Amino acid sequence: MLRQAYHELSLATRGRGLYEFTAEVEAWIAREKFRTGLVTLHLKHTSASLLIQENADPDVRTDLENFFKRLVPDGDPLFIHTSEGADDMPAHVRTALTAVNLSLPLQQGRLALGTWQGIYLWEHRRAAHARRVALHFIGE
Amino acid sequence: MLRQAYHELSLATRGRGLYEFTAEVEAWIAREKFRTGLVTLHLKHTSASLLIQENADPDVRTDLENFFKRLVPDGDPLFIHTSEGADDMPAHVRTALTAVNLSLPLQQGRLALGTWQGIYLWEHRRAAHARRVALHFIGE
Amino acid sequence: MLRQAYHELSLATRGRGLYEFTAEVEAWIAREKFRTGLVTLHLKHTSASLLIQENADPDVRTDLENFFKRLVPDGDPLFIHTSEGADDMPAHVRTALTAVNLSLPLQQGRLALGTWQGIYLWEHRRAAHARRVALHFIGE
Repeated sequence: MLRQAYHELSLATRGRGLYEFTAEVEAWIAREKFRTGLVTLHLKHTSASLLIQENADPDVRTDLENFFKRLVPDGDPLFIHTSEGADDMPAHVRTALTAVNLSLPLQQGRLALGTWQGIYLWEHRRAAHARRVALHFIGE
Repeated sequence: MLRQAYHELSLATRGRGLYEFTAEVEAWIAREKFRTGLVTLHLKHTSASLLIQENADPDVRTDLENFFKRLVPDGDPLFIHTSEGADDMPAHVRTALTAVNLSLPLQQGRLALGTWQGIYLWEHRRAAHARRVALHFIGE
Repeated sequence: MLRQAYHELSLATRGRGLYEFTAEVEAWIAREKFRTGLVTLHLKHTSASLLIQENADPDVRTDLENFFKRLVPDGDPLFIHTSEGADDMPAHVRTALTAVNLSLPLQQGRLALGTWQGIYLWEHRRAAHARRVALHFIGE
């Protein structure tokens, strides 16, 4: 019998960087006893992203952050939307270059993630923020 | 009782830039009386994108456009696929760097968008185009 | 009557480049006699991407590959995660800049793809790999 469910997570960041929250998503799935279906995540912000990336070597996250810092420099004189600071517009650009939603199949109670894949919130602002992720499930 | 629905939107662009169409998606949801579920959008083109971005300050869209113009220059001598003009291959690259589909939970008749989020069609070609977006709903 | 299904594809790559697999997805849809619904694809890797792009002129794939090669150079001294070679960290960055999942409406047994759209696996590593794609369907 197919059913659906909705939930929101609130994630606290300490400024720029990648924060894994695979465990929070899995806890919701376990609590609700979902077995088979589709899990969709949507981040309700325009200056942070959702990303699936390697959760083995933390150097990968350092390199990702450094690459994006160089590709979209803070304080770039190109930008006119600067009212919230030098990292404001770069955060929007970084969001456009990545994603704010993800869809993951669920099979026998497990997300169809690869061995090294984790689900990350990528905070693009320098200051700490509270970020909200909408979760939707449809399945059994 | 779960049900599903399919619809296509046709959006007219006046060349490069971001065009908000949140209202068109919401109008379909209201017309069909969808309450809770998952809304998926797919853009049927390879030289334009779907983007969720800030809909408050229009400078954000200007800066996004200018950043991408600099990152993927028109007429770049790197490109060999140039038959349709200097903006043809850059449009494909910009599409690869962004997204052509989006998935949004619907809760109590409202899309789970953040306060400042709007749904945009990003036209990457310089000329005006008619763009088609496939909409799918599953839920109640 | 709504139902769902899950399947995994294994795709063999011969190193860097774009590999179309629209036909493999369509073959699953035909075999299972799906008519109307939502097809979700998730790539279970962090150094390759899923991409919807033009399947007419092969020059588009050459240009995409060359653009990404220049944007994210192999062996960039910025990177510290280099244990698996000069193309290891660039592969993670290229994955972050593109996507690992896609959602496509299905209508009357046909994916809602545009005339020129094909579904590609984009291998970012130089060596040949076997890549797994999780497929989920919900609908009728």
